[in-house]
Amino acid sequence: MELDLIRRLSQPASTKVVLCVLDGLGGLPGPRGRTELEEANTLNLDRLTEEGCLGRTLPVGYGITPGSGPGHIGLFGYDPLVYEIGRGALEGTGIGFDLGPNDIAARGNLCDLDAGGLVTDRRAGRLPTAETTEVCALLRQITLPGVELFVEPVQDQRFVLVLRGEGLSDQLTETDPQREGVPPIVATATAPAGERTAGLVREWVERATALLAGRARGNGVLLRGWSGRPDMPPFPELWKLRAAAVTVYPMYRGVAKLCGMDSIEGAHTLSEQIDLMKQHWDEYDFFFLHYKYTDSAGEDGDFARKQDAIAQFDQAIPAILALKPNVLVVTGDHSTPASMAAHSFHPVPLLLWGDLVRTDHMHQFSERNCAHGEIGTILAKDVMPLAFAHAGRLAKYGA
Amino acid sequence: MELDLIRRLSQPASTKVVLCVLDGLGGLPGPRGRTELEEANTLNLDRLTEEGCLGRTLPVGYGITPGSGPGHIGLFGYDPLVYEIGRGALEGTGIGFDLGPNDIAARGNLCDLDAGGLVTDRRAGRLPTAETTEVCALLRQITLPGVELFVEPVQDQRFVLVLRGEGLSDQLTETDPQREGVPPIVATATAPAGERTAGLVREWVERATALLAGRARGNGVLLRGWSGRPDMPPFPELWKLRAAAVTVYPMYRGVAKLCGMDSIEGAHTLSEQIDLMKQHWDEYDFFFLHYKYTDSAGEDGDFARKQDAIAQFDQAIPAILALKPNVLVVTGDHSTPASMAAHSFHPVPLLLWGDLVRTDHMHQFSERNCAHGEIGTILAKDVMPLAFAHAGRLAKYGA
Repeated sequence: MELDLIRRLSQPASTKVVLCVLDGLGGLPGPRGRTELEEANTLNLDRLTEEGCLGRTLPVGYGITPGSGPGHIGLFGYDPLVYEIGRGALEGTGIGFDLGPNDIAARGNLCDLDAGGLVTDRRAGRLPTAETTEVCALLRQITLPGVELFVEPVQDQRFVLVLRGEGLSDQLTETDPQREGVPPIVATATAPAGERTAGLVREWVERATALLAGRARGNGVLLRGWSGRPDMPPFPELWKLRAAAVTVYPMYRGVAKLCGMDSIEGAHTLSEQIDLMKQHWDEYDFFFLHYKYTDSAGEDGDFARKQDAIAQFDQAIPAILALKPNVLVVTGDHSTPASMAAHSFHPVPLLLWGDLVRTDHMHQFSERNCAHGEIGTILAKDVMPLAFAHAGRLAKYGA
Repeated sequence: MELDLIRRLSQPASTKVVLCVLDGLGGLPGPRGRTELEEANTLNLDRLTEEGCLGRTLPVGYGITPGSGPGHIGLFGYDPLVYEIGRGALEGTGIGFDLGPNDIAARGNLCDLDAGGLVTDRRAGRLPTAETTEVCALLRQITLPGVELFVEPVQDQRFVLVLRGEGLSDQLTETDPQREGVPPIVATATAPAGERTAGLVREWVERATALLAGRARGNGVLLRGWSGRPDMPPFPELWKLRAAAVTVYPMYRGVAKLCGMDSIEGAHTLSEQIDLMKQHWDEYDFFFLHYKYTDSAGEDGDFARKQDAIAQFDQAIPAILALKPNVLVVTGDHSTPASMAAHSFHPVPLLLWGDLVRTDHMHQFSERNCAHGEIGTILAKDVMPLAFAHAGRLAKYGA
């Protein structure tokens, strides 16, 4: 219903909106009592803060730690409790696989199995991508009745398995036991609708394991994140605009594409991302810029590196402002405190900058100031309505 | 469901609640960095602030700019996304037209058309009300098969057209093109249910235009805001009390009456409104007092006049307090920042004063203090439950 309201009120305009997602931005105080963001040198973000206003997002709800899928889905304006993207669907879309409505995808790992069939390394020593690509070619020999199969390499030991056919279901168990010293889990339906798919997967795993027998590394497969393509109303249609994602990592491109955004590809660094935005500035009304390194450092438990990653991003702000966006949003898809070395449930800092902002006279972009900002603590799905309202892209509701 | 809870918990009491709506109250910082409210001389409101508590309302939701209908519906405790009042229904009810369940109303403008049928002035030079009244009498000559027709003057060039009959629908286009230099839009069904109504309206417009041909000004009609009577549970029944609206402008009286409130009429100024409240104080438990001039000044982009309008209202506070209400609410139906010269989506200042208030020790009624007030940022529909709770009019939920 809320998306129906958006569809009804959104209106074309000549304004430009940029959404910068610093992955895992939110943090927790370190040894000196300040968070990664609070310790970082953020002169440019602080200037935006003075001119703009602050708040916080809850990606899903109080106490809920989001994965990358729901974290982004929410920021794009979709309720992540309504629209779920499985890891398989994300991974497939991230490598440019065009997931169809009859497809069920899983994220696969090549793994090492011992003579007794127990997993000895869930990632097969992070097998090189080239070798995984060869293995995928081998696995494509497998055929199963009534379905089309796709086996696509991703990176290192990771691949995607897609089953295409009528009546498939994601209601089956993962085969990845998530630890070593035990055998892979045998795929089993978790609901009657999953029986046929589980049977197909069991057969596929059996034949794959037979094909890979004798390999020194990567002689087994682990599958997880069974999922089909979510049925999302396309972002450009909802908001009546042209939207592009500019990302370095496939997964974030994937989630943006599942939401119907274009992807402008080819960037390997933040400055290349901004160059691409500049080159395509006239072709789009909305840009989603994803920055990974805050999260990577947080996941590694490296407070100083996360702090540096934030400072690095801060250096890019002048180049983004030089494009002259009307509204600029800087936030994260979730928190990844270095002290937890993992995604967390903590609210995420939010900075909104643009002409119609009711300024709150804060002077630093920080967790603490965000908690007392003008915007308040809002659900991530309300960020897009706010951003587009500030860009004059939402008409009045009612007379 | 929420209204069911209200119906279940509301209880009679001898307390009195006054809701003061300063239309379009919320603003944005002006040249000196402060909003209209922050610049205004509000000694009395500031005293209420010291004794009461502050917060903010979201009329509909984040980023959503409300019209007057949803803005008031929300303040009266109804979810404006569930209960929609169209402009035609509002305008009709506002002039005391008792809109029935088989009625479809439109807000009409007399306009100027040139020889080629193009709109040259959408408001016919704001034709005097007396002349519009004569034109309406003329237009009442038109009859159409199977429907009863009402043409009622409102103010200046504005009138209301009501079609009464079985099977009518509001699913047709407006005929007002919203700009000049183009012809009126031909009424067209937007869904099959609207076909018959659209046909009737096309014929009515054709005959009206023929009747008005030759007039120097106001030789055409423009219709918009097609709508029927919304089906709202009556406010007095929900809250088990007697409720009255004291307004100067018809539209706000109209929305209050659609919600089942009585209207105490005859006031042309704020002090007359308060006199009327005083005269009828014993007959009602709840008074809705509407103050228009904050919005008019905001819509005109006149920062200083909006500031003055707020200060003028402030002067009336002692007279309202002299009535000895138990709970007094001062808020707006939406923001109308002078810098935007339009309704906006920004949260609206809220002041709640009464015996049971948890004071927050703020000293000035301002957007900034409201953002940090005791109440927080709430949906407008939660204002009435809060006000009546403070008035001892909501029983405990559960044992």
